[in-house]
Amino acid sequence: MKNGTMENDDFALSCPTPILNYDTIQLAHGAGGRLSAELIEKVFLPCFENEILLKLEDQAQLEKPNGRIAFTTDSFVVSPIFFPGGNIGDLAVNGTVNDICMSGAIPLYLSVGFIIEEGFEVSELCRIVDSMGKAAKTAGVRIVTGDTKVVNRGSCDKIFINTSGIGVIPNDINLGAGYIKPGDKVILSGTIADHGMSVMTARDGLSFESRINSDTAGLNYLVRDMFKVSKKIHAMRDPTRGGVAAILNEFARSSNTGIRLFEETIPVSDEVKGACELLGLDPLYVANEGKLIAITASEDAGKIVEKMQCNDLGKKACIIGEVTDENAGKVTLRNIYGIERILDMPIGEQLPRIC
Amino acid sequence: MKNGTMENDDFALSCPTPILNYDTIQLAHGAGGRLSAELIEKVFLPCFENEILLKLEDQAQLEKPNGRIAFTTDSFVVSPIFFPGGNIGDLAVNGTVNDICMSGAIPLYLSVGFIIEEGFEVSELCRIVDSMGKAAKTAGVRIVTGDTKVVNRGSCDKIFINTSGIGVIPNDINLGAGYIKPGDKVILSGTIADHGMSVMTARDGLSFESRINSDTAGLNYLVRDMFKVSKKIHAMRDPTRGGVAAILNEFARSSNTGIRLFEETIPVSDEVKGACELLGLDPLYVANEGKLIAITASEDAGKIVEKMQCNDLGKKACIIGEVTDENAGKVTLRNIYGIERILDMPIGEQLPRIC
Repeated sequence: MKNGTMENDDFALSCPTPILNYDTIQLAHGAGGRLSAELIEKVFLPCFENEILLKLEDQAQLEKPNGRIAFTTDSFVVSPIFFPGGNIGDLAVNGTVNDICMSGAIPLYLSVGFIIEEGFEVSELCRIVDSMGKAAKTAGVRIVTGDTKVVNRGSCDKIFINTSGIGVIPNDINLGAGYIKPGDKVILSGTIADHGMSVMTARDGLSFESRINSDTAGLNYLVRDMFKVSKKIHAMRDPTRGGVAAILNEFARSSNTGIRLFEETIPVSDEVKGACELLGLDPLYVANEGKLIAITASEDAGKIVEKMQCNDLGKKACIIGEVTDENAGKVTLRNIYGIERILDMPIGEQLPRIC
Repeated sequence: MKNGTMENDDFALSCPTPILNYDTIQLAHGAGGRLSAELIEKVFLPCFENEILLKLEDQAQLEKPNGRIAFTTDSFVVSPIFFPGGNIGDLAVNGTVNDICMSGAIPLYLSVGFIIEEGFEVSELCRIVDSMGKAAKTAGVRIVTGDTKVVNRGSCDKIFINTSGIGVIPNDINLGAGYIKPGDKVILSGTIADHGMSVMTARDGLSFESRINSDTAGLNYLVRDMFKVSKKIHAMRDPTRGGVAAILNEFARSSNTGIRLFEETIPVSDEVKGACELLGLDPLYVANEGKLIAITASEDAGKIVEKMQCNDLGKKACIIGEVTDENAGKVTLRNIYGIERILDMPIGEQLPRIC
């Protein structure tokens, strides 16, 4: 795929294409009757297959977990639903996997709630569901319960997906903004703004020399690697909506510390830099879907970064800043000339429907 | 409130009305920046208040549960969003509470995911959130994590709400269609079709002598009462979309037994009966949101029903049928003349966007 056009081989399904008597979703597919049952049996089960979901009860019954639980939810309304590097389906799985593992938890189970517009192409639903199954498999999580609603044509824009998730937090792990303290280092796992710019360029039909791929990915194994070398990780967050700037402002506010970033250390790909300049956007405010920010003890930051760089999803991991006593509650950005400016919380919407 | 008109006192908020600089929801409320934070602090937190949610992390951290877990999800797209007896908010809380407790689990935690149309009235959001807080309190559950997305005007119809939930299943409770066996009794907790007909009449602006109120309610304490008198409850389900007919067909199919209902024993209010006749609907296929069906051992059915009748939500509980060897996989309805007909699985959509 080049310049925003999509080639067919991007969409090879891993699940067999279901044979159905219709090409589009009808209201009856959400009515709890025969057509609902057929959609579940022929489209969802083959891609999400696991013995818990197969019971088809209104709730999944899960084994007693061995530890505290992390519980999270996210709705996905991204437009367009297919974009370079991913689609609303893998985005929904990876997004919830990431929200779980940012607490240090091991993600285990996901739920999925579809809201589908009447008339939506079944073939597109199959591609989305297929990507969800693949993303779940990659992250080692199981989709164990779900719900499908169909609304009349015009009552929603194609498809919205909610995923909620459950993970187990190991006993010796305690993360949270409250643990952040002056002297800590700020680690970023790779280049920023890839997801946001991928969606923006797909949306506007913009064509750049090289396409920008979304970074959508589940980060749970990267997090596992980090904990293998250090327990001195104080807080973690994935910089999605509002980007790196929003997450760090939240951290600074909750921990009442200052956070100083060094501009030249923050990795941005040339393509993303170019697209941001063209559209007048600051990459620090643009959404990521496969990156994490960790605030760690200074003494362990180096070895954490080294370990991250051994994982494909952390190849460009680096230290981008430090936690300070000064400027409590604020984030500042220092450029190569030593000039420092405040990096504010985003006020409004830079990019609606980015995730 | 009479004949579909709504009086103000129906909408007294229990949470203080927030003071905000805008009357409608803007795209920025879903962007993860300052306006998102304000919406959470001023609208959601006061109504959902609990110490877990207050931490405002991307995931809720919950104590290690003492038992197996029930995990469920449901999206709510009901139209209109306000209807006699409830609104999309309490419906969303009660619906997920019910899905959890139908496994015999004690519901504990809910997540909430809002998808809101740009321009939606903040005052309506406050009413909805207020109802959610009240419903959660009534059911004894906590809303511990959430997400808000705002989509451009026209990209969704007002507001959709996803709730997911977690409950703990006591060690000695094992429910499921697999436990159903011939000789069992079918218990229904009260009148049917109230929710569906409430929404239908509100939608069409139909006016009847008495208004039909939705039965939306959390059934967890009714279920607790039932287990106090018997452990011989084999399967439970709340007959929502597709009504009593769909749920019993699923039971018959999964357990490979027959289910015979006695038509005259099934409670339907006169108002609902009248509205169904007018609209050409069969109440057995219409959605309920505060009723349950239980399949229990014959010898305990009487005392379970007696106990249910002591709870406000089970006053009209009764035995409506039995499980048979005959007609395996099918549901039949016997009328007072002894004539039996098959009550089929609904094929299509009787009532779109009923929940």
